[in-house]
Amino acid sequence: MADSHGLIIVHTGNGKGKTTAALGLGMRAWGQGLRVLVLQFIKGNWKYGELKAAEKLGGDFVIRQMGEGFVSSSSDESDDHKAAAREALADARREIMSGAWGMIILDEINYAIRYGLVSVDEVLDLLEAKPGYLHLVLTGRDAPQEIIDKADLVTEMREIKHPYKQGIKAQKGIEF
Amino acid sequence: MADSHGLIIVHTGNGKGKTTAALGLGMRAWGQGLRVLVLQFIKGNWKYGELKAAEKLGGDFVIRQMGEGFVSSSSDESDDHKAAAREALADARREIMSGAWGMIILDEINYAIRYGLVSVDEVLDLLEAKPGYLHLVLTGRDAPQEIIDKADLVTEMREIKHPYKQGIKAQKGIEF
Repeated sequence: MADSHGLIIVHTGNGKGKTTAALGLGMRAWGQGLRVLVLQFIKGNWKYGELKAAEKLGGDFVIRQMGEGFVSSSSDESDDHKAAAREALADARREIMSGAWGMIILDEINYAIRYGLVSVDEVLDLLEAKPGYLHLVLTGRDAPQEIIDKADLVTEMREIKHPYKQGIKAQKGIEF
Repeated sequence: MADSHGLIIVHTGNGKGKTTAALGLGMRAWGQGLRVLVLQFIKGNWKYGELKAAEKLGGDFVIRQMGEGFVSSSSDESDDHKAAAREALADARREIMSGAWGMIILDEINYAIRYGLVSVDEVLDLLEAKPGYLHLVLTGRDAPQEIIDKADLVTEMREIKHPYKQGIKAQKGIEF
């Protein structure tokens, strides 16, 4: 893998599909023989369907929840959550530097930045430090400009139409 | 599945991630026990990585290329291609009505519409005819407004930054 260039990929925007497309990238990379690790910065963002599918793909597609799952609203920005976030970021750095993975997905890390749980500079340091071959995928709305500047590939998922706004309930196999 | 409401989902826009997010949706749905069928309206859009991963998921996640793969540019709009597209649409209708699938992904069907290979009305008829439980995912840039109007969930994938424009070559595991 020495001569391959690992990409920094960002999925941002207010629409669906940021995490779902990361899952698709992971599946494709896995199919190519890369080992894939998903680190969840938000509790419960990965649902039963993908956990079960990842399980089926075996030990080379791993989904792991970081820290305590952190917060669901800004009112939870306690020191505990910040400590957990810092620990999660340290774990992420260890995995990034370990050489064990071909792709690492930092799912909803933009959210952790947005709520001040980790700083943009800490994440930029991670991007700077990553091994050259490693593909790194960062998801979450409101990606900071500094991270967009550093990325190779950035897609904004923009919501055009959403079923909940039309009174349709969450559907098994789609939402969970 | 009688009381579940199958969604019509559209991934459109000029950015990456339309097909990749459909792959992620398929994987999640599969993990939930739904049988998933991908019908490719553009040849070669699904690459080695996902074909191999789908294979690993077994007979309940099927990727099938339709017709002759159709065109790669508008200069190929021959009658042959139109006939192949019509046949592909008839196949799609059979699968949609078969009751055998919980999710069908019509990958790049918007492209086939855009190049006049199938008409919007034919596709709208399909959406109208689909069984209530079935999730239908339509991908491709330039989704016609009539299809957006008919859909439950529409996401536009918007390109913010693309590596090819920065001189980075396609990467194994990401692009193919």
